[in-house]
Amino acid sequence: MFKETSLRPRYAETDQMGVIYHGNYFTYFEVARSDFFRQNGYSYKMLEGEGVIMPVTESGCKYYKPVLYDDEILIRTHLNWNGKLRTQFTYQIFSKTSEELLAEGFTKHAFVGKDLKPLKVRSLSEGFLNVLQAYMGETVCD
Amino acid sequence: MFKETSLRPRYAETDQMGVIYHGNYFTYFEVARSDFFRQNGYSYKMLEGEGVIMPVTESGCKYYKPVLYDDEILIRTHLNWNGKLRTQFTYQIFSKTSEELLAEGFTKHAFVGKDLKPLKVRSLSEGFLNVLQAYMGETVCD
Amino acid sequence: MFKETSLRPRYAETDQMGVIYHGNYFTYFEVARSDFFRQNGYSYKMLEGEGVIMPVTESGCKYYKPVLYDDEILIRTHLNWNGKLRTQFTYQIFSKTSEELLAEGFTKHAFVGKDLKPLKVRSLSEGFLNVLQAYMGETVCD
Amino acid sequence: MFKETSLRPRYAETDQMGVIYHGNYFTYFEVARSDFFRQNGYSYKMLEGEGVIMPVTESGCKYYKPVLYDDEILIRTHLNWNGKLRTQFTYQIFSKTSEELLAEGFTKHAFVGKDLKPLKVRSLSEGFLNVLQAYMGETVCD
Repeated sequence: MFKETSLRPRYAETDQMGVIYHGNYFTYFEVARSDFFRQNGYSYKMLEGEGVIMPVTESGCKYYKPVLYDDEILIRTHLNWNGKLRTQFTYQIFSKTSEELLAEGFTKHAFVGKDLKPLKVRSLSEGFLNVLQAYMGETVCD
Repeated sequence: MFKETSLRPRYAETDQMGVIYHGNYFTYFEVARSDFFRQNGYSYKMLEGEGVIMPVTESGCKYYKPVLYDDEILIRTHLNWNGKLRTQFTYQIFSKTSEELLAEGFTKHAFVGKDLKPLKVRSLSEGFLNVLQAYMGETVCD
Repeated sequence: MFKETSLRPRYAETDQMGVIYHGNYFTYFEVARSDFFRQNGYSYKMLEGEGVIMPVTESGCKYYKPVLYDDEILIRTHLNWNGKLRTQFTYQIFSKTSEELLAEGFTKHAFVGKDLKPLKVRSLSEGFLNVLQAYMGETVCD
Repeated sequence: MFKETSLRPRYAETDQMGVIYHGNYFTYFEVARSDFFRQNGYSYKMLEGEGVIMPVTESGCKYYKPVLYDDEILIRTHLNWNGKLRTQFTYQIFSKTSEELLAEGFTKHAFVGKDLKPLKVRSLSEGFLNVLQAYMGETVCD
């Protein structure tokens, strides 16, 4: 169970190696994650409006083939929730033209309030919990 | 009357043209502006701590010669204050090795509170006003 | 005669003021410019493939109201070509929800080869010249 | 055996959570890596001048405490070389004021030519091999 997001790499994101700078993949993951929430009927913006912030506690990426300027990519996003206050997203980046897997990565998140202090599960809104529960016990692809 | 800031361009800031991406010059200006305050015995961080934010209301840059990865630059920063709630900074970017002028630009700023609403001059701290007053009526280089 | 591009601001592009960082507007302009070419049946990638690079020689932006995370914007892009080796694009950023004008800016470009040396008009491909000619003598909005 | 690099986080690098955006840590690692080479009498720029590029093949970061705007950090960089065409750098980010460990991460690199194809060890310059050899068999901190 995953969601897919299309994205067109920008010139600003290239480096003088002629490829997308490796650090920018984490921004692509963020775009995919935002879109994942949206496709599940929620938005990260709404979540922050409810006083919930999901900072990244760990991130990683394996780079197989370069992502290139203007060559559209498809990001496949999985969420795994263990019922507690941690989530893990995994991401796979595919070339839209060749359908090759170009990179894969993950982000782990905590749930905190605006003061950056941990929240309890019961402080999350019902709407948001419904999204998480749909992804409980998912086997992640990483 | 100006302050100078040295900066070493990063790989992340290059693009596939093999030069520093034009949009990143505005980040360089920000680094120079922060350093300008610091060299004047103040810091933008302190200012935000006092509830004062200086959003950019206008910006511009002329690009003469490329800024290159790892080739140190020197940014010369001027401040012009007209005694009201607007300031203008101008910036000149020089190559540290060739001493050539590579680019020049400006930023105009308002003073607002955390709610992004305009502040009155009298709501600024004495320490910060002292910095501004030292640059009142400066002739800017642009 | 203009083209329109939709864009959803990213979390990575915000700053601690809670708005999109002013320097990132130039990346938005680049996205709009790439899309402008694409909507005219060309792509900047193709252009670079033909050995033509269009570095920015001057840029500017006026910021009226903040652009916010996840609040979609519409960028209206105009091109003005004077028949010589300079072009000017102008951009207007609108809120998609309120339809308000949030910012406007411009970029000026030269045409150079991979060695960053100026090209002659006759060295541009016919396909690309056709795009430019359609925008010759346009009155720009700035 | 490590090298240390000081760095002052920029406003552009913050996000609306009020901290440095997690993806920017990989740019900090790059700055530290460039500086690591420089402190070893070499530079990544020189290396690229010799036709050698070191793309990142894997990266990761654990975020313990937020890095904040203008609060200087110290990055401690280790290199581990196994004598083959792979290297691994590890990085620890400390607060300069509190001396706390804020984050740690790593990057793995290949050696490729300008065509992004793998190089052989013997195609590396003597000067660069000397740097690598000094770090052969290092125990990395991760």
